[in-house]
Parts: sequence; structure tokens; C-alpha cells
Amino acid sequence: MATSRWTGTAETSSVSLRRRGPVLERAILDAALEQLSTVGWSGLTMEGVAAGAQTGKAAVYRRWPSKEDLVADALQAGLPALDEAPDHGSIREDLFQLCRRLRDALYSRSGFALRSVIHECDSITAERFHGVIVRRLIEPSNQLFREVVSRGVERGDVRPGVAGDLVFDVIPGLMMYRSKVCGSEWPDRDIAEMIDQVMVPLLSSRAG
Amino acid sequence: MATSRWTGTAETSSVSLRRRGPVLERAILDAALEQLSTVGWSGLTMEGVAAGAQTGKAAVYRRWPSKEDLVADALQAGLPALDEAPDHGSIREDLFQLCRRLRDALYSRSGFALRSVIHECDSITAERFHGVIVRRLIEPSNQLFREVVSRGVERGDVRPGVAGDLVFDVIPGLMMYRSKVCGSEWPDRDIAEMIDQVMVPLLSSRAG
Repeated sequence: MATSRWTGTAETSSVSLRRRGPVLERAILDAALEQLSTVGWSGLTMEGVAAGAQTGKAAVYRRWPSKEDLVADALQAGLPALDEAPDHGSIREDLFQLCRRLRDALYSRSGFALRSVIHECDSITAERFHGVIVRRLIEPSNQLFREVVSRGVERGDVRPGVAGDLVFDVIPGLMMYRSKVCGSEWPDRDIAEMIDQVMVPLLSSRAG
Repeated sequence: MATSRWTGTAETSSVSLRRRGPVLERAILDAALEQLSTVGWSGLTMEGVAAGAQTGKAAVYRRWPSKEDLVADALQAGLPALDEAPDHGSIREDLFQLCRRLRDALYSRSGFALRSVIHECDSITAERFHGVIVRRLIEPSNQLFREVVSRGVERGDVRPGVAGDLVFDVIPGLMMYRSKVCGSEWPDRDIAEMIDQVMVPLLSSRAG
């Protein structure tokens, strides 16, 4: 009933009344990401996010009972989906395109914020945000690497004997290592080198 | 001249006077590592280290002007040397033994302390301790991986075409990734799997 809805949101500002449901939610999540990029995890407040989204504090608290809940949702909403790996005709090109998408996710605004939040917050909260990395980046990309390799076996450019979980950790391992140790942001050229120097020899090998 | 030396060390306790030079230094460095393991970077004080080494604060400050200097030396002194990779007769066994030594260094008391210090201290100090990781772990192990692979090419169990820096980052990349993401401490069995599933196929491949 309309009247009761207006009563329920009476504390929000008149500006916010024009946006409801998903539109307002997106504005709040976006303001939260913006706050993370500018003032970081410690500086982010529910008030600041409300102000950034031009709404009232109550509109934020109604949806997210805590700063942790809000930030977890904001980070997840900001990450590009890793939900499919189209067939580009060869293992080399399939891996190249998939790595580019993973790189784009890692270096998206949300990806940057995710890493800096984990560095900044306490260890229990960090554990929760690690979960976001696992569910939204590690698990889906691992699944897609497996699909791409299976397709390569069917196509014939991947040796049938490829086995073991470790093979699927080589790319994320190299990406993490070079990012942390050399500060690499994985331009396309470096991705191509990784595929040509490491993944193609590893996957098309007849040894082992 | 003996008298001036006694004058110079007059503020140290009578216990410390029995140990000099390298012996006293080793006791201080060991006490610093012990403090890092128990009270961490924030809790470590020059006084606490002096007490742990049963010496006076001045004996510590005379050698290390700051906590950063002391901790950097303590961490370095505590890391096992990665200075040679003996020939075990095959690329598989050479890599296996080298990885075990790298793992032992990473999970030594100093290796653990190094990682926790970097997590705990401010970013400028962290930069300095990153330098310890690079100089004492990353660079020497990279050098040894290259030696082992060159020896394999000469021996004939590594394909001559192996090229590119990325190949030599696969092992440290996998070790870092699985340690961070799965909490793996790299038991021998996992090292053997990494060699058999990834490194042997990659290095003995005729593709690429």
C-alpha cells in the first residue's frame, strides 16, 4: 500500500525518494566503491556513503546492517562477471582472452579496492573479503580454465594426459607473483608471453 | 688499548662482558628473532631484545642504530643460504631438492617472521623488508633454477628451446599462490606433484 511505503521511508531525503529498489541500491554501492577508492576502508562511513549517494543514512542501514556487509556487496557488484569462455578456435587464443578478462577484473576499480581493503582491515574482516576473492575471481576463473583445457583436448591442441589441479593454478600463480614481486599489471604483451612461454608448452607437451 | 675498550663498554652488564664480537652479535640477533615470534614487530623493543640476549641496551644500539636495522639483520641472519644446487642426476630430482630448500627457507623461523613483519609494519619499512625477500630468497633461488635448467639441457632431459623469464617464475608463483590461497605449507608430496604435473611436462616439452 502506497501510504505505508512513504511512511517507511519518511527519514530519507526528498532527493532519494525519486529512486527506489535497484536504482537506489546501485547508487549506494557505487558511492561505497567511490569512498573506498578515496578514503579507504578506515575512512569509509555509512554517513559518507549516504551523502555520496545523495540519500539518507537510514536508507543505507535498512539494506546493509554494517559497513562490512555494505562493502562486501559493493566489491562483488563492481567485479565484472567471469561466467563464460567463448571458443576462439585455439587453446592459445582461448587462454589469452580468458587471462585478459581475469586481468581486467583484478585491475577493475573493485579489484583494486578489494586488495587494499584486505590490507587495511582486521584479520576477521579480511577473511570475509578473501571469501569474495575466492567466490568471485578464483573459483570462476579456475572453472573457465578447466573448460578451455577440456575444449582443447577435444579440439586436439591440448594433450589428453593433462591432469592435476596444479596445472590450473599456474596462470593465477604467475599473475599473483609478478604482480606482488615486480608490480606487473599484466599488459596484453606479458599475457601473450605467459601463454607462449609457459602454457602452450605445458599443455601441448607429450612428455610427463 | 684494553682500558679504553672497557671504558667504552662500561654501560653493559657484567654478564655481557664475557661475550664479544660475533658471539654477542649472534645472541642479539637470535633474541630479536625470538621477540618477533612472540610479540611481533610492534611489540619488539631494543630493551626487550637486550634483555633477551642478557646484555645492555647500549650493546644493541652500538651495533644497530634502529629497530629496522636490527630486524633486517636478524631476518637475514636467520635465513638458510640458497647458494648451490648440487647435481642429483635428473631435472626431476634437482628441482625437487631445490624446491625443498626454498620451502625450508620460507617456513624457517626467519621466513615466518619476515612475512608477518611485512604485514605488520608501515609501508616504507615493509619496502625494506621486501628487499630482504628479494635479495635472500627470490634472486638466489631464481639463479639456482636457471643453473638446474641449464644443466638439464646439457644432460639432455630438458628441451634446448626453454626460454623466457616466466618459466623460472612458475615454481615461486605456484608456491606463493597456494600458500596464500589454500594455506599450503608445501609438504614434500605437493612439491613432487608440482614437479611431475607442471615442471617436467613444461621443461621436457618439444612444443611451443
